[in-house]
Amino acid sequence: MELWYTEEHTEDVRFSIKVDKVLYSGESEFQRIDVFYSKEFGKILTLDGLMMLTEKDEFIYHDMIVHVPMATNPNIERVLVIGGGDGGTVRELTRYQTIKKIDMVEIDEEVVKICKTYIPQTAGKLDDLRVQIFFEDGLKFVRKQKDEYDLIIVDSTDPFGPGEGLFTKEFYGNCYKALKENGILVNQHESPYYSNYANSMIRAHRRIKEFFPICKVYQAHIPTYPSGHWLFGFASKTFDPIEDLEENKWNSLGLKTKYYNTELHKGSFAIPNYVKELLDSEYE
Amino acid sequence: MELWYTEEHTEDVRFSIKVDKVLYSGESEFQRIDVFYSKEFGKILTLDGLMMLTEKDEFIYHDMIVHVPMATNPNIERVLVIGGGDGGTVRELTRYQTIKKIDMVEIDEEVVKICKTYIPQTAGKLDDLRVQIFFEDGLKFVRKQKDEYDLIIVDSTDPFGPGEGLFTKEFYGNCYKALKENGILVNQHESPYYSNYANSMIRAHRRIKEFFPICKVYQAHIPTYPSGHWLFGFASKTFDPIEDLEENKWNSLGLKTKYYNTELHKGSFAIPNYVKELLDSEYE
Repeated sequence: MELWYTEEHTEDVRFSIKVDKVLYSGESEFQRIDVFYSKEFGKILTLDGLMMLTEKDEFIYHDMIVHVPMATNPNIERVLVIGGGDGGTVRELTRYQTIKKIDMVEIDEEVVKICKTYIPQTAGKLDDLRVQIFFEDGLKFVRKQKDEYDLIIVDSTDPFGPGEGLFTKEFYGNCYKALKENGILVNQHESPYYSNYANSMIRAHRRIKEFFPICKVYQAHIPTYPSGHWLFGFASKTFDPIEDLEENKWNSLGLKTKYYNTELHKGSFAIPNYVKELLDSEYE
Repeated sequence: MELWYTEEHTEDVRFSIKVDKVLYSGESEFQRIDVFYSKEFGKILTLDGLMMLTEKDEFIYHDMIVHVPMATNPNIERVLVIGGGDGGTVRELTRYQTIKKIDMVEIDEEVVKICKTYIPQTAGKLDDLRVQIFFEDGLKFVRKQKDEYDLIIVDSTDPFGPGEGLFTKEFYGNCYKALKENGILVNQHESPYYSNYANSMIRAHRRIKEFFPICKVYQAHIPTYPSGHWLFGFASKTFDPIEDLEENKWNSLGLKTKYYNTELHKGSFAIPNYVKELLDSEYE
């Protein structure tokens, strides 16, 4: 018998991974949660059947969502992570001694519990003393915050299911308000390649631009996400991710990274013409 | 009934596309050739069951294999294309008025015939008066050339099957000899992500470095290739692809491109740490 996990990237495109073992399958209040083991990818977390991370390539996503804002402003002290229940984003943040406070707001306590049990590679730093976890809706949490954070990272699922509210105009407006005067907002920004994802990308970009004077998009190669071409949004009140990049300062920290480096940081903001055109389009 | 094309990226990873119609299936002297039609990707060419191109994203590969060397040295006049039977590389080259001669060496005449019939999107410029097609083994063809070309583009299949000779030390040495004193060699360079491809990448890079003083690697997002993370090799006798990039000159040509731009050109040479480490490793 062979067991295969298959994700439909579009109606006509499927990506399948041979599963050696199902480590966990369950249903939380919010979503279905599965943990598989695969020879090629190690442990794999899926939510509602969609790929969240694999041990083989989670470093790419987490490097890019954390080190890009941190190298732009190495003085960041107070960080809010929305989503990110697997703990990978928090793990990278805890590597900075300069960070004093990490609040993480995850709607689904089950995800954190299961990742702590099955995927310590990402969840292993959730007990860092600077980390406080709030199990509530990120949308509601940011409504209550004002002038509180230097950095907000939106490490959400796709904009269907529990992650939907994290792509709304109201949410981005509240993020703006929750950020200090030099604040940065980074979010996972979907993919430009398949139109179902590209539409979410266009919409998110347009909404963020309404609030933030600096609003750019950068890219990474994440082979286990649909199309492998994944984007992140960088929005901020004052910092420009290229002009203000603290290259020497970041390199002097001596952090070892498997994907990120400061040359790549700059290069990742150079995006293809067709992606630029999509971002500038007037999608409703 | 549903028809699906499936490519095994590794033993444990499969990528599948729903096929609406099989336009051609046949066996040449060298390989199996199929042309499918898919709603998501348009026409698709596979050789020996491996994805060569789709109408949806061939622009990415062809932009990156042609415009990167052309923008580095816009004075290129004489070009040799090895492989590339689908015609996409030649199509991009013919857009440069400054190019006087394009020799294309394709081992398999059937591929060219079938692409001319079924995929005019890529094959439509093979009749350009500057183009001469040689149906022979690229490895043997370059043996006979000396000091002849400003640019050689190796648009080959993977290094198994008919493309194997185009990844050998002998071949790269002959390319060096076939190039003029300012010559550039660009080749498709496989993917760093899955080890079966990464080993070919490491080997190719090490062999090219033995001949060319300048030897770099650049990347692109090609969603229909294994992992979507694809590399190209840039080797040259004198030109550096970043320092010598003729940004203004290239932009003044006014060529419209869907993927390539000169910012992306520079960004594409910034590669992840894990890829750098693989390229520097001493794989045998």
